[in-house]
Amino acid sequence: MTQYKYVLEENGMPTYWYNILADMKKPPPFYLHPATLEVMDDPPMPPPVFPMELIKQEFSKERFIEIPDEVQDVLKMWRPAPLYRAARWEKALDTPARIYYKWEGVSPPGSHKPNTAIAQAYYAKEEKLEGFATETGAGQWGSALCFAANLFGLKCKVFMVTISYHQKPYRRVMMETWGGSVVPSPSSETNAGRAILEKDPETTGSLGIAISEALEYAMTHEGFKYSLGSVVNFVLLHQTVIGLEAKKQMEMAGDYPDIVIGCAGGGSNAAGLIFPFMQDKLNGSQPNLRAIFVESTACPSMTRGTYAYDWGDTAKTGPVAKMHTVGHGFIPAPVHAGGLRYHGMAPSICALLDQGQAEARAYHQNIILQAAESFARAEGFIVAPETAHAIQAAYDEAMACKESGESKVILFNASGHGLLDLAAYDAFHRQDLPDYELEQEKIEQALVELPQIPNG
Amino acid sequence: MTQYKYVLEENGMPTYWYNILADMKKPPPFYLHPATLEVMDDPPMPPPVFPMELIKQEFSKERFIEIPDEVQDVLKMWRPAPLYRAARWEKALDTPARIYYKWEGVSPPGSHKPNTAIAQAYYAKEEKLEGFATETGAGQWGSALCFAANLFGLKCKVFMVTISYHQKPYRRVMMETWGGSVVPSPSSETNAGRAILEKDPETTGSLGIAISEALEYAMTHEGFKYSLGSVVNFVLLHQTVIGLEAKKQMEMAGDYPDIVIGCAGGGSNAAGLIFPFMQDKLNGSQPNLRAIFVESTACPSMTRGTYAYDWGDTAKTGPVAKMHTVGHGFIPAPVHAGGLRYHGMAPSICALLDQGQAEARAYHQNIILQAAESFARAEGFIVAPETAHAIQAAYDEAMACKESGESKVILFNASGHGLLDLAAYDAFHRQDLPDYELEQEKIEQALVELPQIPNG
Repeated sequence: MTQYKYVLEENGMPTYWYNILADMKKPPPFYLHPATLEVMDDPPMPPPVFPMELIKQEFSKERFIEIPDEVQDVLKMWRPAPLYRAARWEKALDTPARIYYKWEGVSPPGSHKPNTAIAQAYYAKEEKLEGFATETGAGQWGSALCFAANLFGLKCKVFMVTISYHQKPYRRVMMETWGGSVVPSPSSETNAGRAILEKDPETTGSLGIAISEALEYAMTHEGFKYSLGSVVNFVLLHQTVIGLEAKKQMEMAGDYPDIVIGCAGGGSNAAGLIFPFMQDKLNGSQPNLRAIFVESTACPSMTRGTYAYDWGDTAKTGPVAKMHTVGHGFIPAPVHAGGLRYHGMAPSICALLDQGQAEARAYHQNIILQAAESFARAEGFIVAPETAHAIQAAYDEAMACKESGESKVILFNASGHGLLDLAAYDAFHRQDLPDYELEQEKIEQALVELPQIPNG
Repeated sequence: MTQYKYVLEENGMPTYWYNILADMKKPPPFYLHPATLEVMDDPPMPPPVFPMELIKQEFSKERFIEIPDEVQDVLKMWRPAPLYRAARWEKALDTPARIYYKWEGVSPPGSHKPNTAIAQAYYAKEEKLEGFATETGAGQWGSALCFAANLFGLKCKVFMVTISYHQKPYRRVMMETWGGSVVPSPSSETNAGRAILEKDPETTGSLGIAISEALEYAMTHEGFKYSLGSVVNFVLLHQTVIGLEAKKQMEMAGDYPDIVIGCAGGGSNAAGLIFPFMQDKLNGSQPNLRAIFVESTACPSMTRGTYAYDWGDTAKTGPVAKMHTVGHGFIPAPVHAGGLRYHGMAPSICALLDQGQAEARAYHQNIILQAAESFARAEGFIVAPETAHAIQAAYDEAMACKESGESKVILFNASGHGLLDLAAYDAFHRQDLPDYELEQEKIEQALVELPQIPNG
């Protein structure tokens, strides 16, 4: 019988995270202070919105960073996660490609997000904090942090992008079941939220605004710190358990990927899978490895944005980073892939793109749901709309193999299940799912507001 | 570090099913013909609504029945399923009990149901059928059968109990994503449905009615057969992979259960876990093992019904079986645990109850959701309302251990996740979840309609 599933024993889980900054010839430039635009070249990064240990990790140049025992202990609730050979889907596509996927949907919140949420909650508990404030788009991150915070006895305050709050009510219930407190963003609980609501009471919100609200909440509530679910180095670091496991599992399968793929909103799940393989490319042992980061056409920072310094949030509260951006004021169309509605991108991924080490592409939401449905019918799993972007890229690569007759090895990250996103599939079935065309003018307007950097 | 999770290699999956009829001193009595009430003591069971191989299994006395390779191959998409030590929940409850649970939520449809759906679809394909008609309560069974039918190239027509069709729209989308066709039941597509709608256009429906509709549809559509997700012997047989795996995993953990628990609507998930352990009780090697079947107070067939012959469906189309029943005309209150709204119970389970080999109990829905929330906060997983009944029983037993100071080993089946049932948790949080009191009179009324058996 065909082997489809590569399962590691509990002791096959990595005991360290992989820090790609140690292997990049030119790491991403330092953050700039949000107000003065001066270089922040050493920890602690002011304002100290994160637990200190995470700030240290953000600036670390160590290649491997140990995963604390207590963090490993909790990750083992669902890790190591299985890696699958998509043999049934290959057959359905009639492709000579060998397609693999890492399945992160087995975690209790249903995505890769708890990989970092658990670590962040652990360090917060070590610092004796009372709780976290955070933002969430589709609710994947918020539910992961509520889940993690609760396990470590911490409170969790979540600002959930309004469009998702209404599109995905079940994720709110999930967060509440784990003891979290959830409000739609923009909310009237912060100055940042009130300012936006005053200008546009009907706004669908954005991750940029929600970040501003969470930052403000954390800075104005004693014992609270801010928690971020993507973009920054330490988050991507925590996600490398995905790729470190996948490398062992690909070895079990006797294959090595020609192409590694992940969907990217802030970039954390894609980096989590891709960075440990990228190490082999950066050190020259796998020079031909292709890495593809896939975004939504509704928020095309990598494919249509600019590579420049920008604020990470709409209210300019957080640091300025050099990244691919469509502008911190950009409000994307309400696509179902709420996790891909971020205006920027992880600076480390952007540096790799800029240095020609990786590729980016963007898709509309109808085509990605079509691919996800074809995947669900062959492989069983119904994935999140974000993940569906990675599936579409895998599909395109598999079809290219069919055309060329090549039998390439394609590996993508199936970052989460779509069981709380079935409204997207329903709209797709009813042919009621718009493909939003984005006018260049709208991007250019948002880019006007980028900071003016003296030597940028 | 504590070991919480016991994972079997792919080759640790059982290659045969366990048939408890081989070990019961007094197996359940034969079915009676739905119209003549004559004993149906040999296959084929008229009318031959199921694929022939399943009818053979229904009457088999073989202790072990081989699982076809193609069925094993598909089950390995998610099996073997993990078994967990609920160490965090034990700590939260401060109990000396050792609590284990088998986690069936990892299957693509999210419950134990595909264990039999896959087998049934395989046999249907072998018989070159075109498709299945079936009923579903909460949608767990319907989604499992759509998932399975699609993998074997079969059509699937699902009659979904109206109350669940509206309470759980996402399960409909799930079924449609896998290519199924879903209508609310009672529907206007069958005589059985039209008759009920005429009498009561506002009915919330019941599994009994939906079964009648599916049976009628199968019998009136060329190439279609009926598929049942619980109650009958061959379904329970297919579910024994759960307990067969769990026995190996308990051995890995170095423990053997004192108490095994499952929630029971028709009884399949409970039997799936419990029967392989029950073998040890029946053969005398574990005489003190306690088996607990847990139902909803809204449909208390085991705890308040009678042990008598009754039709399995409302329209009296299917065979008559001796079972614990609240009457085939009984329409239970619309509790969220749609899978527990069946008027009868698996005859094999009923025989074990009658012979004093097992126990039954019933719970209201608020208390079971409270237990499920306490479980979710400790163990992470958010379970289905049906599963929550098993959790409440485990909770009660763990609390009894705390009282007595005993360190008993409790094992329950976590039969499915509740990610599509979050409306139940939401109602629980909002204190908007009724506990339905069932008047004895209502049961007595339904029991009046039981068949009059000459020598019953």
